[in-house]
Amino acid sequence: MAVAKGLEGVIIDSSQICHIDGSAGRLIYRGYDIHDLASLVSFEEVAYLLWNGDLPNKEQLKQLTQHLVQERAIPANVKTALRNLPTTSNMLDVLRTAISILGAEIPLKKPDLTDAITIAAKIPTINAAFDRIRLGQEPIDPREDLNHAANYLYMLTGREPDPTKADALNKYLILLADHGMNSSTFTARIVASTWSDSYSAVTAAICALKGPLHGGAPAPVLKMLQDISRPERAEEWLRNEIKAGRRLMGFGHRIYRTTDPRAEILREIAERTAPRSLVELAKAVEDAGIRILQEFRRERRLYTNVEFYSAVVMHSVGLPPDLFTATFAASRSVGWMANVLEQVANNRLIRPETQYTGPVNRKIVPLESR
Amino acid sequence: MAVAKGLEGVIIDSSQICHIDGSAGRLIYRGYDIHDLASLVSFEEVAYLLWNGDLPNKEQLKQLTQHLVQERAIPANVKTALRNLPTTSNMLDVLRTAISILGAEIPLKKPDLTDAITIAAKIPTINAAFDRIRLGQEPIDPREDLNHAANYLYMLTGREPDPTKADALNKYLILLADHGMNSSTFTARIVASTWSDSYSAVTAAICALKGPLHGGAPAPVLKMLQDISRPERAEEWLRNEIKAGRRLMGFGHRIYRTTDPRAEILREIAERTAPRSLVELAKAVEDAGIRILQEFRRERRLYTNVEFYSAVVMHSVGLPPDLFTATFAASRSVGWMANVLEQVANNRLIRPETQYTGPVNRKIVPLESR
Repeated sequence: MAVAKGLEGVIIDSSQICHIDGSAGRLIYRGYDIHDLASLVSFEEVAYLLWNGDLPNKEQLKQLTQHLVQERAIPANVKTALRNLPTTSNMLDVLRTAISILGAEIPLKKPDLTDAITIAAKIPTINAAFDRIRLGQEPIDPREDLNHAANYLYMLTGREPDPTKADALNKYLILLADHGMNSSTFTARIVASTWSDSYSAVTAAICALKGPLHGGAPAPVLKMLQDISRPERAEEWLRNEIKAGRRLMGFGHRIYRTTDPRAEILREIAERTAPRSLVELAKAVEDAGIRILQEFRRERRLYTNVEFYSAVVMHSVGLPPDLFTATFAASRSVGWMANVLEQVANNRLIRPETQYTGPVNRKIVPLESR
Repeated sequence: MAVAKGLEGVIIDSSQICHIDGSAGRLIYRGYDIHDLASLVSFEEVAYLLWNGDLPNKEQLKQLTQHLVQERAIPANVKTALRNLPTTSNMLDVLRTAISILGAEIPLKKPDLTDAITIAAKIPTINAAFDRIRLGQEPIDPREDLNHAANYLYMLTGREPDPTKADALNKYLILLADHGMNSSTFTARIVASTWSDSYSAVTAAICALKGPLHGGAPAPVLKMLQDISRPERAEEWLRNEIKAGRRLMGFGHRIYRTTDPRAEILREIAERTAPRSLVELAKAVEDAGIRILQEFRRERRLYTNVEFYSAVVMHSVGLPPDLFTATFAASRSVGWMANVLEQVANNRLIRPETQYTGPVNRKIVPLESR
């Protein structure tokens, strides 16, 4: 059998959650196009959709919203743990630890919708609490009258956010909520396939999301934009990066052969939310990057990926760069749990093999003679 | 393309670490047969072998042993975290949290051998410390003059262990140290493939190991043996389990078509270490289980797997049942890190796909009309 390194193109299961048409640049959640979802519904409705298969009616949405609001607060032992972590900790390490501690309260059980709601509700609170603790400020309790996105921004600053910014974050949270068998979602499904629990699945997914090849790119993208600083410097800066053998952050995606629909929507959001100078800089870097990469990889055109304009949007709504990936986790946790629930509903342990290419028939020489 | 649910038989990469010949019932680490390793070398030598590719010479072994001994202690903030977890926590939740906290001290970097040593050195200390804390006792500092296995038992009780028991645990730790692309090792490789760090990879692996279909079986096996309690009751008890639609714990393995060599070696260790009545009970349950399962699954003979006699051996060396899987982690962490190092040495992001079977072309109905 052939070695499927990286599992590119390998179909690990059927799924009714998310469809990516990489050639057409389409992304669909449960039959709904991502453009429609981002323009017409709330993050809470998308969470309901991904977990249950259908959009909620008014009563269902009210119940889910109430449940999410009730679950926003984090227990005292998690707050204590956040205070005991180094203030320099990577936010993903913080989030991983906090979710792990939450899970330690709960006896091993089959993943269920309650876990999904609890985890999605608490991630923004954990992120915001640690952000304040490391700045020497007191964490701010969640507000019951704000939606998921607005409450997140409120807990960071203590100020009710500008509606345009809350709306931009709401759309970001929708756009990133699921994306097929990406590495963190795959990790969550493997953990669930062993009959482990939801908190283990999500903790493990956070571990994978941390990687710069997966969820770790937006902060370096913002840093790149800040380093370039002016549109006319883009070309030279990017060429130097490539000459130095470094990967351009924010370009290219394994699945999309054309533009990533999420990147397009995020570009539009950035145009409405970000300072004009930043949008112009981002567009100049995008144009130069696509053009330069084309010179080096003629066989396949590379476009900006979701992380590129994610960085611009998250920066514009007021998130500090080291909260970018943790905010990605706040969104993707919804998809992780949708996938965990689908996995356990029709489970088979995920356990592949490797092809051994090492030495054979070695005999142990006594230590004295080695 | 066909759906490879569970990835059974799918080769995800080549590897020079571990070879499992499921038809012949052979297990090989880096070219050495597991029987030779279990009878001739120490856990420390196996760790060196798995990480470096060759058995150490005297000087190399001395250096590794010194490094492991130096790394045994756990920092104060991890001890504090252990004290703040519920005393009823699942040991895997505890270990997952502790490794996550250790990782929060370290800036994101490419996995290296130092990580492997630190993690392998500290897992027994974490396990033993929490075991004592939950019993209302003070954690015991590691001893520098004892080997890895003996020091683990010492930290649990404060007494220098019987050499037969320390040797049995040493052999257990060797036997379980690696096993191809099992779910937790695969999880660790996926996390590493995103350019995340060693602590994230091992935290995620612990999440997968927790599952009863993977590392969570030995404690239920011991409970089964204790429930059955007498050899003559095995037949009826096992038949009732199957009638009730429950899976028999400790039987069957996806890869082995014959006896698992580790189960055979552990049976021999059990014969030397465990009380005679327990060994006779275990053998009666093994015989009856294989016979009864044969009636139900004629197409494939199922044997006792590694977890069956693991339970007997771990019980005999004095480990409480809820430390069984955490002790498995103490062993397997060596294999996890060997695989993480191999993954990052020649990396490709592990990112498969799913086949979408859900609805298509749905249009959003306004909330008021749903």
